[in-house]
Amino acid sequence: MTQQRWQRISEWPLTLAAVLFLAAYAWEVIGNLAGPSSALAEVIMAATWTVFLVDYVANLVLAPERWQWFSRHILDLLIVVLPLLRPLRLLRLVTLLNILQRTAGTAFRGRVILYAAGASILLIFVAALAVLDVEQANPGSSIVTFEDALWWAFVTITTVGYGDFTPLTVMGRLIAGALMLGGIALLGVVTATIASWIVERVAIKEEDAQAATRGEIRALEHQVTKLQETLDRMDQRTQVLADRGVSPK
Amino acid sequence: MTQQRWQRISEWPLTLAAVLFLAAYAWEVIGNLAGPSSALAEVIMAATWTVFLVDYVANLVLAPERWQWFSRHILDLLIVVLPLLRPLRLLRLVTLLNILQRTAGTAFRGRVILYAAGASILLIFVAALAVLDVEQANPGSSIVTFEDALWWAFVTITTVGYGDFTPLTVMGRLIAGALMLGGIALLGVVTATIASWIVERVAIKEEDAQAATRGEIRALEHQVTKLQETLDRMDQRTQVLADRGVSPK
Amino acid sequence: MTQQRWQRISEWPLTLAAVLFLAAYAWEVIGNLAGPSSALAEVIMAATWTVFLVDYVANLVLAPERWQWFSRHILDLLIVVLPLLRPLRLLRLVTLLNILQRTAGTAFRGRVILYAAGASILLIFVAALAVLDVEQANPGSSIVTFEDALWWAFVTITTVGYGDFTPLTVMGRLIAGALMLGGIALLGVVTATIASWIVERVAIKEEDAQAATRGEIRALEHQVTKLQETLDRMDQRTQVLADRGVSPK
Amino acid sequence: MTQQRWQRISEWPLTLAAVLFLAAYAWEVIGNLAGPSSALAEVIMAATWTVFLVDYVANLVLAPERWQWFSRHILDLLIVVLPLLRPLRLLRLVTLLNILQRTAGTAFRGRVILYAAGASILLIFVAALAVLDVEQANPGSSIVTFEDALWWAFVTITTVGYGDFTPLTVMGRLIAGALMLGGIALLGVVTATIASWIVERVAIKEEDAQAATRGEIRALEHQVTKLQETLDRMDQRTQVLADRGVSPK
Repeated sequence: MTQQRWQRISEWPLTLAAVLFLAAYAWEVIGNLAGPSSALAEVIMAATWTVFLVDYVANLVLAPERWQWFSRHILDLLIVVLPLLRPLRLLRLVTLLNILQRTAGTAFRGRVILYAAGASILLIFVAALAVLDVEQANPGSSIVTFEDALWWAFVTITTVGYGDFTPLTVMGRLIAGALMLGGIALLGVVTATIASWIVERVAIKEEDAQAATRGEIRALEHQVTKLQETLDRMDQRTQVLADRGVSPK
Repeated sequence: MTQQRWQRISEWPLTLAAVLFLAAYAWEVIGNLAGPSSALAEVIMAATWTVFLVDYVANLVLAPERWQWFSRHILDLLIVVLPLLRPLRLLRLVTLLNILQRTAGTAFRGRVILYAAGASILLIFVAALAVLDVEQANPGSSIVTFEDALWWAFVTITTVGYGDFTPLTVMGRLIAGALMLGGIALLGVVTATIASWIVERVAIKEEDAQAATRGEIRALEHQVTKLQETLDRMDQRTQVLADRGVSPK
Repeated sequence: MTQQRWQRISEWPLTLAAVLFLAAYAWEVIGNLAGPSSALAEVIMAATWTVFLVDYVANLVLAPERWQWFSRHILDLLIVVLPLLRPLRLLRLVTLLNILQRTAGTAFRGRVILYAAGASILLIFVAALAVLDVEQANPGSSIVTFEDALWWAFVTITTVGYGDFTPLTVMGRLIAGALMLGGIALLGVVTATIASWIVERVAIKEEDAQAATRGEIRALEHQVTKLQETLDRMDQRTQVLADRGVSPK
Repeated sequence: MTQQRWQRISEWPLTLAAVLFLAAYAWEVIGNLAGPSSALAEVIMAATWTVFLVDYVANLVLAPERWQWFSRHILDLLIVVLPLLRPLRLLRLVTLLNILQRTAGTAFRGRVILYAAGASILLIFVAALAVLDVEQANPGSSIVTFEDALWWAFVTITTVGYGDFTPLTVMGRLIAGALMLGGIALLGVVTATIASWIVERVAIKEEDAQAATRGEIRALEHQVTKLQETLDRMDQRTQVLADRGVSPK
């Protein structure tokens, strides 16, 4: 079996595993579970972890140039090995965004906006879960309910930053950093899309100029065609003259 | 009566109802009314609500394909049915912005700026009213006067976010979210408009290049016209030659 | 004397009056003056106020269509009449920015950046002065030194908004609003200038395409010129033939 | 020795001195050193300072027009003379960014993004060090660990501005100002790069129009070439006719 075939086969099981992981993770974090419920959530997460582990090993075994694949997928290894990076498994859900994108038709700007909106919502939700996970275990933290975590994530990604809730742990601050970078990118995409639209609307005049140029070239073609016709007529006449000039001799 | 005719007739009564609703809502929220005044404000709001309800039912009855119209106007139904979504009735006021836009002449960027400014002012005012409505009823909230609510709305939409006033209720946070998204859009529109202006000013050089191209094409046309004249002269001469070559025979 | 001549004459005295007003205003506000010093500062400000008053009256008298000028300069009237709007007299200093602009050469983007930087610095300085003026008189306010006021103005115009200092008075909040709008405009100008620069750099390829088009048009011209030469040669020969065809007869 | 040669020779020792200075500075500030360790760090910093001093003097001596060079490098003098401006020596590290840039290939947007990311990371790190240096010596300051300083720098450069940590000293606020300006520039670069990319993607249609114009010009060239061929044929025939017209005489 080739690596390409494996990746085609494993795409959907991995996405499903990511969705299941998200559900179990959200259940455990929001419910602040303990006892049998927590154990069940952990079992589900361990099961999805196995799927990711199997995928990593299979890719490593099937890769044509193993060392090259290994050195280029250090992050994949860390996501599988370090429990701390578990939330990054949700990056798999970008597959779902790709499908949204496929069904969204062909308008480029529409797809950019849809992708940005989808990625932002996913980022806000996952960051709220992850920050709640690390902050509610830390005494003195202000982010202790999922509602507050969602609110904090939204305030952060829009770069408003009220400061009514702020993470205190290192991990929480790393998550905040990712949200802020996401916010800058979101702002950039929104602005850029509007700018592109306005530039295009204003540029219609310029396209008219381009069209005028092409109109003049077409007029020139018309003139040249008439030239050719005149020449063809003359060509036949000189032929007649040349033939006649020969025959009487 | 067709649905189109109904919508043309109902456009202005609905806008008037939205303005009346806004006035009564502002009066009740800012005045923090109680007793007979509150009852009067509620009566006015109920009256405007009736207008929206009648419009919804009329649209549903007159729609050529009723189910399609119903499924595409779920939000309209929710605005009419849920008291919580009452402020969204003010979306009707966008009609007024359309009129501003119509009178603003033809400059595209000017209309974009005007629309963005109008929508921002409306959003700030309505969000301040709505947040005051939900927060002043919540013990412990800091937003308890309309002045503070306006200040909070302005600080939020510009993404400054001092954090001196923050909503504590779920509804207040949803309103804040709408303001933040509005702020990102506002920032995008301002930046994009300036960018479009600068790009245009810098692009004048490029338009000059375009003009130069067209100048060269025109020079080429002149050359081809002269070619045609030379050929016409020759055409007549070869005709003469051909005629003469025949006649003496 | 015409209004135009008056405006040419009064341009520099008004700018000087604005500078003097700024100096006296800064001295009074930062020094939190009392007694004779305060009286002196007030005398200087009254003197500069007279200059603005004289200019307003002179303009009104000299205007060709007095009512039109009056209705279009309501703000000028308010600045002269209302002590509250005194800081707006500093808008006159934009004249200095115009001079900077004139000496800054011809690069359009350079002038935009210079103007934005100059206006931002002026806005920060004047807003810090004005907010200190209104806030230090208000018990409970946190902005009581000029250093804090400058820091607050800078934090606000960049839309960072820590919230360590916030205005409490209505006037202070209006000044903050002006700063925030200035900040959005500043952000827009910076982004737009960078965008214009990147678009231009990337567009060099497109200009190359344009140049290639013109190269092909030039090659075409060369071909047509050769056509004309061939035709000219033929023209002379057919002339010879036609002459000869006549003479032997 | 010419100044150019000196600058080529001194480029790498200066960069090395800046790296060493950064290491010693970070060690002293983060470790909040005292006693012999502090003395060692100070010795290293003094040594790197000597390198900068020697470079400044050498440049001054070797400059072809000494006064011109002096007046244009006032900042270099201040960096060498004022201990307060020591962190600015790290501007030398931009040399390293230039090398990154050289190895990053030719894509313009890629290089802009890489440069912006590198400069942002350097700015965050150096600002965190510098603010910790000035704030931890100030009683009452909240920024007293390097982790908090880094977090504050990141919150500031992204213009989120929670306000959980804010500088209290003048020097700390100047550093914060530099960070905020860096943040506005960063936002501008990100937005501009995305805008350029979207504009380019949308503009492909326009390039197609340009290509179509060139296609038509090429078709025109083809027509003119055929004209030339017809004319050449006629040219030979009229030559034959003219020769024959002469010979029989």
